[in-house]
Order: sequence, then C-alpha cells, then structure tokens
Amino acid sequence: MRTLYHLPLCPFSRKVRVVLAERKLPFELKVEKVWERRPEYLEMNPAATVPVLVEQNGLPIPDSSVICEYLEEAYPDISLLGRSLAERVETRRLAAWFDGRFYQEVTKNLVGEKYLKRLLGRGNPDATAIRTGFTSLRYHMEYLGYLADTRKWLAGAAIGLADFAAAAHVSCLDFGGDIDWEKFPAARDWYARIKSRPSFRGILADRVPGIIPPAHYADLDF
Amino acid sequence: MRTLYHLPLCPFSRKVRVVLAERKLPFELKVEKVWERRPEYLEMNPAATVPVLVEQNGLPIPDSSVICEYLEEAYPDISLLGRSLAERVETRRLAAWFDGRFYQEVTKNLVGEKYLKRLLGRGNPDATAIRTGFTSLRYHMEYLGYLADTRKWLAGAAIGLADFAAAAHVSCLDFGGDIDWEKFPAARDWYARIKSRPSFRGILADRVPGIIPPAHYADLDF
Repeated sequence: MRTLYHLPLCPFSRKVRVVLAERKLPFELKVEKVWERRPEYLEMNPAATVPVLVEQNGLPIPDSSVICEYLEEAYPDISLLGRSLAERVETRRLAAWFDGRFYQEVTKNLVGEKYLKRLLGRGNPDATAIRTGFTSLRYHMEYLGYLADTRKWLAGAAIGLADFAAAAHVSCLDFGGDIDWEKFPAARDWYARIKSRPSFRGILADRVPGIIPPAHYADLDF
Repeated sequence: MRTLYHLPLCPFSRKVRVVLAERKLPFELKVEKVWERRPEYLEMNPAATVPVLVEQNGLPIPDSSVICEYLEEAYPDISLLGRSLAERVETRRLAAWFDGRFYQEVTKNLVGEKYLKRLLGRGNPDATAIRTGFTSLRYHMEYLGYLADTRKWLAGAAIGLADFAAAAHVSCLDFGGDIDWEKFPAARDWYARIKSRPSFRGILADRVPGIIPPAHYADLDF
C-alpha cells in the first residue's frame, strides 16, 4: 500500500492528499511526529519535513513539490499541470507562489505561530508575527480573488495544482477561523467549488486535538 | 533573442544561467533592479524576484524552479533531471534542498546580509544572522561533501540540476570569500569539477561593484 507520512495542519501534506485523491490513487495516512527525528524517517528525508510519500514499490519521495512532479510523470493519464507549455508555466508559477510566498507571509505566521509552536512546545505565539500574518492575508486573499474572478480556475480554464496548493493553505487558515469570508466573495466562490470536490472530503473531516474549527469549516454552503 | 532578467549574486539566477549554457541555449542577460518594482516586470512576475526568462516567442517564465522544469519539457534532447523516476526524485529533492534549506540557512544569512542589504540600503549586516550562517555553512558543506564522496555527482551517476543548484549557492558564498576550502576537501573536488565546465565561465567572470572576490574565485585549480 502507498503511504503518506503527514501532519494534519500541514498545508504541504494537505496538497498531496488532495492531489492523490484527484488522481484516484489509494493511500494510507500516517502521522509523522517530525520533531522526534526518527532515524528511519530522516534516512528517507534528511530535511525532516512532511510529507513523504512511500510508493507501492518502496520508493520514498520527500517534499510536496517533488511528489507532485513525480505523480505527474508516473501517472500521466491525468495532468494537474496543464497540457501546453504556457499552461504548465502558469500552474507551476502559482503553486510556487502559494507554497513559497503565501506560506512564508501568511500560513507560517498564523498556523505556525498559533498551532505548531504549541505542538512543538516552543512557547507562546508571537504577536508581531500574527499581526504581519493578518495584514499579508488580506493582500493575498485579494490576489486570489482577482485570479478567481478573471479565470475559471486559478491558473486558467482547468482545475489543477495551483488550485490545490492554494486550497491547502486556505483550508489550514480556515480551520483556525482566520478568514473573514464576507470580505472576499470571489475567493469564497472559488473555495466553495473546491470544497465540494470528493477529493477534499478527507481535509474537511480532519480534527486536531485542542482546536475546534469554526462551524463553517466543513460546510459546503458556507 | 531569449532574455534572462537576473542579478549577479543571486544564486537562483546563476543556476538558470548555468542550466541554459549546459543546454547550449543562447540568451542575453539583463540586470533587473527588482527593488525599483518596474510595472512591466511585475506584470511578468508579481513576486518581483529574479530570475525571469523571456523565451524567443515572448513567453515570460518566472521562478528558477519553474524555468528549469520548463526547459526540461521544452528541450527534451538533454535531461538535467535524470531518466528514471527514482533519479528524477533524487535530483529534484536535492535541488529543492539547496534552493530551500541551504538558501534559508546559509546563502540568505551570508550573501543576503553582507551584500544584498547594502545594495537595498537596508542597513548594516546583522551579526547574529552571519554567525548562524557560518554555523549552518559547516553543516551543509559536510552534507555536500558526503554526497560528493559517495556518488559521482551529487544526485548520482550523472551531472544535473542538483549539482548546478548547489554550485550556484556555493559560487555566491565563494565570491564573498566565505568558504574555507581546506576544511572541505570532498566538496572542493566536486566544485573544482563544476568550475572547469564551459557553462560555468560566465559565473566566474562576474564582477560586482564594491566586492573583490578572493584570488581563488575564478581559479580552476584552487
């Protein structure tokens, strides 16, 4: 059986879960407490991050971007990057935007400070980081809304990796009740369409000890 | 003509310069002062980072990882990722390691603090960041040496993107005289092999106002 080592509120793990489900590739989820630095895990992934996918043939694949590129090549019947070179550039640009810029400026400052710090026993959330996170969130949600408003899906006509990368981050923030959806109607319409996909059910069913998500978190008509 | 917008001591720009040269794809270099936030540039790359490659047909491709994936698909006669799925996983894992972990822990703390801050008029280098950078450098150079010692090239039998990503960061640090090569003989042997490649000549010819690289910087027998 294919195994995905993950953590529940990790946006990179969530992205891969949705991508595997979109591709209809069955997998088993295993929580990896990366802070315990398990030697067998470090051998698979010296970076000590989640996710790592272990394929049916035993091949370990670390790093969510590497996993998504691998799946695109190993299972070419479905493409989540697009078919033309230009589509693939735009999809990869946006996936890198959400996993890089959005993560550093928003997800890390909010989910990282409020949830991961407690989990890792690294003290109280830093108020400045949280303020920075909320300021950046507004700017990023406006860009997301602009894309959703001018295109069918974020990178163009077809749903793909840009949508799943963005939705993975948004879902982590929404779990913590950080998004005031009234303010971002275009982004909300896009996210409602993503939430209604069967591939997203696992994400919406996540529960994390000590955090109660807002009532709308798993509601498809939020 | 193909155009690469870059900055001289940017490791991501250097990686793409070497990759284009390895592929024998001619290009013109243009310095992009990203801090000026030129509207035409932001339209091509809202992230306001270098590099951006503009292809002969006018297609703008931002983000060095996106550019390298694009080149792999657009010019499939040469592969810098490897041929088997497992080789491509290992090459991409290491490229992501150097562009992610190595950059955040080493290049940003040393090249960023000592050179970029001055360039951007953002004050004096932060002593703590520089100390952290040097501590991380030792650890990373040992890992690089371990890879170079146990494999022909960093990701395996063939030279490829992992080597060029690593060498791009190493070359920026070496320009600033930050690497005490006596301490890292395995990494030095690997870097000497990279430096002797024709694709690396442009990097070794770089000069930056106000910084004098050490005598060994462009020396192939350093």
